[in-house]
Amino acid sequence: MSTTVAAYAAPAPKAPLERTTITRRAVGEHDVLIEIKYAGICHSDIHQVNEDWGQAPFPMVPGHEIAGIVTEVGSGVTRHAVGDRVGVGCFVDSCRTCVNCLAGNEQYCLKGMHATYPAGPDGQPAYGGYSTHIVVDENYVLRIPEGIGLDVAAPLLCAGITLYSPLSHWQAGPGKKVAIVGLGGLGHMGVKIAKAMGAEVTVLSQSLRKQQDGLRLGADHFHATSDPATFTELAGSFDLIVSTVSATLDMDAYLGLLTVDGTLVNVGAPAEPNSVSMFSLISGRRSLAGSMIGGIRETQEMLDFCAAHGFGADIETIGVEEINDAYQRVLSSDVRYRFVIDIATFAA
Amino acid sequence: MSTTVAAYAAPAPKAPLERTTITRRAVGEHDVLIEIKYAGICHSDIHQVNEDWGQAPFPMVPGHEIAGIVTEVGSGVTRHAVGDRVGVGCFVDSCRTCVNCLAGNEQYCLKGMHATYPAGPDGQPAYGGYSTHIVVDENYVLRIPEGIGLDVAAPLLCAGITLYSPLSHWQAGPGKKVAIVGLGGLGHMGVKIAKAMGAEVTVLSQSLRKQQDGLRLGADHFHATSDPATFTELAGSFDLIVSTVSATLDMDAYLGLLTVDGTLVNVGAPAEPNSVSMFSLISGRRSLAGSMIGGIRETQEMLDFCAAHGFGADIETIGVEEINDAYQRVLSSDVRYRFVIDIATFAA
Repeated sequence: MSTTVAAYAAPAPKAPLERTTITRRAVGEHDVLIEIKYAGICHSDIHQVNEDWGQAPFPMVPGHEIAGIVTEVGSGVTRHAVGDRVGVGCFVDSCRTCVNCLAGNEQYCLKGMHATYPAGPDGQPAYGGYSTHIVVDENYVLRIPEGIGLDVAAPLLCAGITLYSPLSHWQAGPGKKVAIVGLGGLGHMGVKIAKAMGAEVTVLSQSLRKQQDGLRLGADHFHATSDPATFTELAGSFDLIVSTVSATLDMDAYLGLLTVDGTLVNVGAPAEPNSVSMFSLISGRRSLAGSMIGGIRETQEMLDFCAAHGFGADIETIGVEEINDAYQRVLSSDVRYRFVIDIATFAA
Repeated sequence: MSTTVAAYAAPAPKAPLERTTITRRAVGEHDVLIEIKYAGICHSDIHQVNEDWGQAPFPMVPGHEIAGIVTEVGSGVTRHAVGDRVGVGCFVDSCRTCVNCLAGNEQYCLKGMHATYPAGPDGQPAYGGYSTHIVVDENYVLRIPEGIGLDVAAPLLCAGITLYSPLSHWQAGPGKKVAIVGLGGLGHMGVKIAKAMGAEVTVLSQSLRKQQDGLRLGADHFHATSDPATFTELAGSFDLIVSTVSATLDMDAYLGLLTVDGTLVNVGAPAEPNSVSMFSLISGRRSLAGSMIGGIRETQEMLDFCAAHGFGADIETIGVEEINDAYQRVLSSDVRYRFVIDIATFAA
C-alpha cells in the first residue's frame, strides 16, 4: 500500500521550495522503506529546479544524497534488514542486463539509469530525498558502516563517489601527484579521499582564500589559479588532475600541468563546450577525460573506505525551512562544504 | 672529417626543392655514418617547408623516414656495425637524463628532443633524409630486421611508430574494437598494425572511395563519415579510436562512438583548437588523448613487430627529381599510401 509522506518540493520551475506531501509506492518484494535522517544539498539540485538541464516534471522533490534507517523490507529482501543504516545516491535502478550494468557501471547503463529524481528514464516523475521516507529497490541501497555519522555520510552518496570513482580509476595513491581543481562540495571530498589514498595532493583554487581549509582537509599544497605563475611553476607536475569546476576552463593551461601520460578528469560539467588544442594532448600523451558518479559496488567500496579512514563530508546542518536560503548560499559558494538537511526538522 | 654530400633542399620557405650539397659532420666516437637508400615523404615535410609550424632555418633538407646501410662507425660504437640495415626517424638525440628519456619516452624529452630536421632544440640547423648520407648517434639509430625491404621500412620510422605507439599503449588486441579515422599515410599503417595486433578494425573515412583498399589492408569494416547514419549505427561501439586527421573534427560525434572507458587518440594535429563538450567525456568515462611518434625502444619493437608480421608500408617509389610533384600529390591525397624517394636516383 502506498503511503503519503512529508516532503519539500519546488511546485514549478525556478520556484522556491515549500512543504508538501507526496506518495511513496508500496514496499515491493525487493524494496526497502527508508526513514530518511539526512539529505545533502547538491548544486545539481538547483540546476534541476531551474530546469537548467532540460524540462522536468513538477512538483519536484530534489535530493540524491540520502542517509537513513531501514524501517520495512519486502518479502524477498536479503541485502538489508530493519534497523540498518543505509544510503541512496543518484540512481535507484538500471536495466541490470547491459554490459555496463553487468560490469558494475550502472551509472552508464545503456538504457539509462533510473535517476533518484526528478524522473526515471521513461520520464515518469520520481521524488528525491528532501522527504521523510523513500522506497528503493534493495540492490540500489548502500550500507553505511558504523563509525560514520549519517549526517556526514549523506553527501558521500554523490559528492563522495563523484570524486572517489575517478581517483580510484586513475589510481591516485602513493607516489602520485594529484591536483584537485576547485574546493567546494566536490573538491573538498577530493582532497580528503586522494590524501587517504596516499597521494600528494595539491588544491588549485581561484584564490588563496580557502588555503587554511585546504591544508586542514589534508592538501599538501595550495595554489591560486588566478596567479599566472601557478601555471609555469607547476608545469608538467601532476599525474592526475580532477576538475570539479562546472565553468569552462582554459583546458590547455591545465593540460600543461600534467606529466607525460597524465590525465585531466572533469567531474564538473560546464554547459558550454570547451576549446582544446590537440597539441596540448599530443605533446605529452595526455588525456582529457570525464567521470560521472560511480556504480553501486564502487559506491559501497567508497563508503567502506571513508569509514575505515574515519571521515565523511564537512557539513553544515540545516532545518527544512532553511532550504531556500541554503540554495542562495550554495550559489554564492558560501558553504563549507555541504549543506545537509536534518529531516527530523519536518516534525518541528 | 666532415663530408660534403648530395641533398634535395628547399632554398627558402615555400620554395620548390632543388638539388644541392650539404655538409655532414665527421663521424664521432658514438656516431654511425649511414648511406641512405630510401627516404619517405611525410605530410609534415610540406608543413615544415612552408613554415606552417613556425620559422625554421633554410636551406631545409626534409626527411625523417630514413632507411639505409651503415658504412662507417665511430670507435666507441657497439650497437651497429658496417653493413647493418638501419633506420632513423623523427629525432636523433635527446637529453638522455630526464624522467621521460629514462623511461624510453625520448619523444617527450623535457629538454626537447633533437629533431632530425630542420633544427635541433637550440635552433641550430639540421638536415634530414632527402640526401645520400647522414651521421647519427648510434643510440638513435634503429635496426631494420631482415625480411622487410628498406623501401617499405622507411615510412615505418614516422608513420609506423605514430600509429604503433598509441595502439600498443591503449592495448589494441584480441577482443578490442578499434577504429582508424582517415586512410592516408598514417591511417593505412594503423589498419595494418591494429589488425596484426588482433583487434577488430574499422576504417572511418570521409567517403567509401577507398573501401576496397581498406579491406585489402586488413580492415574488417569500412564506414563513410560523410554519412550521418555512421554515427548512429556505430554509437558506443569502439574501445579505441585513433584519428589521423589533421583537420578539426566534430569531436563530440566521434566521442559518441566510444564504449564506456573508451579512448579517442589524436595523432593528427589540427592547427586550430577543437571544441569538446565535457558531457561527451563524462557520460561514459571516456578519454580524449594525443600521442606523438614513439620512443627509441618502442620504435625498435615496432620494426620487429612489422617484420614478424611481414609487412611494411604501402608505397609508391619516386626519383629525387619527382619530389616537388609528389608534394603536390600529397596535398591532393593522391598517394597510396606513402611516397618513398629512391636515393639511388641522386646518381642518375
